[in-house]
Amino acid sequence: MSFSVPDVMSNPRAERVRDVARLATRAGRAKRGLFLAEGPQAVREALALHRERLAASGAPVVESVYATADFLERSPELAELAEVAAGTRLRVATEEVLAAMADTVSPQGILAVCHLPATTLEEVLAGRPRLVAVMCRVQDPGNAGTILRAADAAGADAVVLTEGSVDIYNPKAVRSTAGSIFHLPIVSGVPFGDLSAALRGAGLAVLAADGYGDTDLDALQDASAARRLAGAGSGTDPQAVPDPAAGVVLLEAPSAWLFGNEAQGLDREELAAADCRVAVPLYGVAESLNVGTAATVCLYASARAQRRA
Amino acid sequence: MSFSVPDVMSNPRAERVRDVARLATRAGRAKRGLFLAEGPQAVREALALHRERLAASGAPVVESVYATADFLERSPELAELAEVAAGTRLRVATEEVLAAMADTVSPQGILAVCHLPATTLEEVLAGRPRLVAVMCRVQDPGNAGTILRAADAAGADAVVLTEGSVDIYNPKAVRSTAGSIFHLPIVSGVPFGDLSAALRGAGLAVLAADGYGDTDLDALQDASAARRLAGAGSGTDPQAVPDPAAGVVLLEAPSAWLFGNEAQGLDREELAAADCRVAVPLYGVAESLNVGTAATVCLYASARAQRRA
Repeated sequence: MSFSVPDVMSNPRAERVRDVARLATRAGRAKRGLFLAEGPQAVREALALHRERLAASGAPVVESVYATADFLERSPELAELAEVAAGTRLRVATEEVLAAMADTVSPQGILAVCHLPATTLEEVLAGRPRLVAVMCRVQDPGNAGTILRAADAAGADAVVLTEGSVDIYNPKAVRSTAGSIFHLPIVSGVPFGDLSAALRGAGLAVLAADGYGDTDLDALQDASAARRLAGAGSGTDPQAVPDPAAGVVLLEAPSAWLFGNEAQGLDREELAAADCRVAVPLYGVAESLNVGTAATVCLYASARAQRRA
Repeated sequence: MSFSVPDVMSNPRAERVRDVARLATRAGRAKRGLFLAEGPQAVREALALHRERLAASGAPVVESVYATADFLERSPELAELAEVAAGTRLRVATEEVLAAMADTVSPQGILAVCHLPATTLEEVLAGRPRLVAVMCRVQDPGNAGTILRAADAAGADAVVLTEGSVDIYNPKAVRSTAGSIFHLPIVSGVPFGDLSAALRGAGLAVLAADGYGDTDLDALQDASAARRLAGAGSGTDPQAVPDPAAGVVLLEAPSAWLFGNEAQGLDREELAAADCRVAVPLYGVAESLNVGTAATVCLYASARAQRRA
């Protein structure tokens, strides 16, 4: 593949370059309804979703792709993917232009400008999700990205961010999702009051991840394993299986997990809305878990219980 | 509490200030055998370990503490802790001096200069550990810190970093441990060849966390739960319990987990040294887990199996 010289964008001060750079700010993203995905992995995932959406006659995901000639030579498969993506503009740019567009020092030769999705909570809940991760006022973009990636790995059906949370489309958050931002529906800016009623209306148990919770995650997992082994006819004494009527949440039931703000945890209203306050046990000297770590343990516990039930 | 003016260090270009600032580099730390712990949480944990060590007539942990007068007024309990710590120098400094010493923009009013511990692998293994986390050429300080913090939360007995890993005493790594760096023994710079033999000699099963592993972590957890329920006399059919002789590692056995480099994972030698290559299941579309997330899931699985056995 070769590119003639006039095709190459080389002016880092061009208006279009500045337009892309403005997507690093929340206001810039809101104004244009676009966000930035930097680097080969994110762009690959964006284009894959874009094709899938278009094939299902849905809305496009990628607005345009910018890459260096050098990158396109090295990664012909990604160049091809970008070229054939209907409605997407692939532009060749110099390293300098890409650096001016990107939030990172080096976007590794490629970036995509993507449409902010317009997913609503109603759409997500209409899909009858079994596992939802809710970030309640999580502030750090790295933590938000980690939670989203963990939710993806655990096979969650959706991620919700309440009002007052970090913008998950901030470039640092997008990077830390390692492509997961294109893997599952995300709803942002939801007022908590509306959310808890909607989750419950959709038949989801609401679990609060809370270091001071009175229910131990391991106890929930043990009860779930005991029910599973009993159900598998392995002869486990049914007496050993906790009574669901006892008010304990069943880990294998459709659930939404609430994860709180880094400094304050979940607030009173958020805790009060939960069916159960669940603590991840601390076996060592650590005073607490990072919210991303706690979310990983909680979401995997639910995923295991649900998938193996 | 009040401080007379001559006590306050106010020259950010003083030799002592520069000496502390040099601890941000690996060479600076190696030369003086010291490292930096920034912020109230880290300093509190450092001083707590310091007192515990001195009471057991062990080696001191903290060499000196620097804090602003303002911080000491606001946190009298930490001021007292620092004052009574035998052999530790508490110096009052201006914000400007602290900023010049610290790696962070704002060390939140306090930092401690601490002695690099001289823990050896032999000492750690002589303590008959049940759960050890090994970082094999992990490069990112944030990841190393997250793994150490997860190891602490899961009650691991020690953390080992092989030759070629990031320096865990780098200020960014120390920060991301949230104090856990003072909670459990850490051995750094261990050549992998020596390590695997030593782990095995200490009776530890060696588990490789490997996305391409042929053993599913959930299968190991299920087998462990089945053994536990059978052992608890709940009547589980012993036939349902996997045969330990079948070559499958028992999750409740004393174990060392190997976690690999972010980009390449575990290398051939590291994988070959393991008794078992264990994959964390991916239930969603995510291609892989961040090494910190994978380590959390693996270490918690072992901790659960061991503690509830």
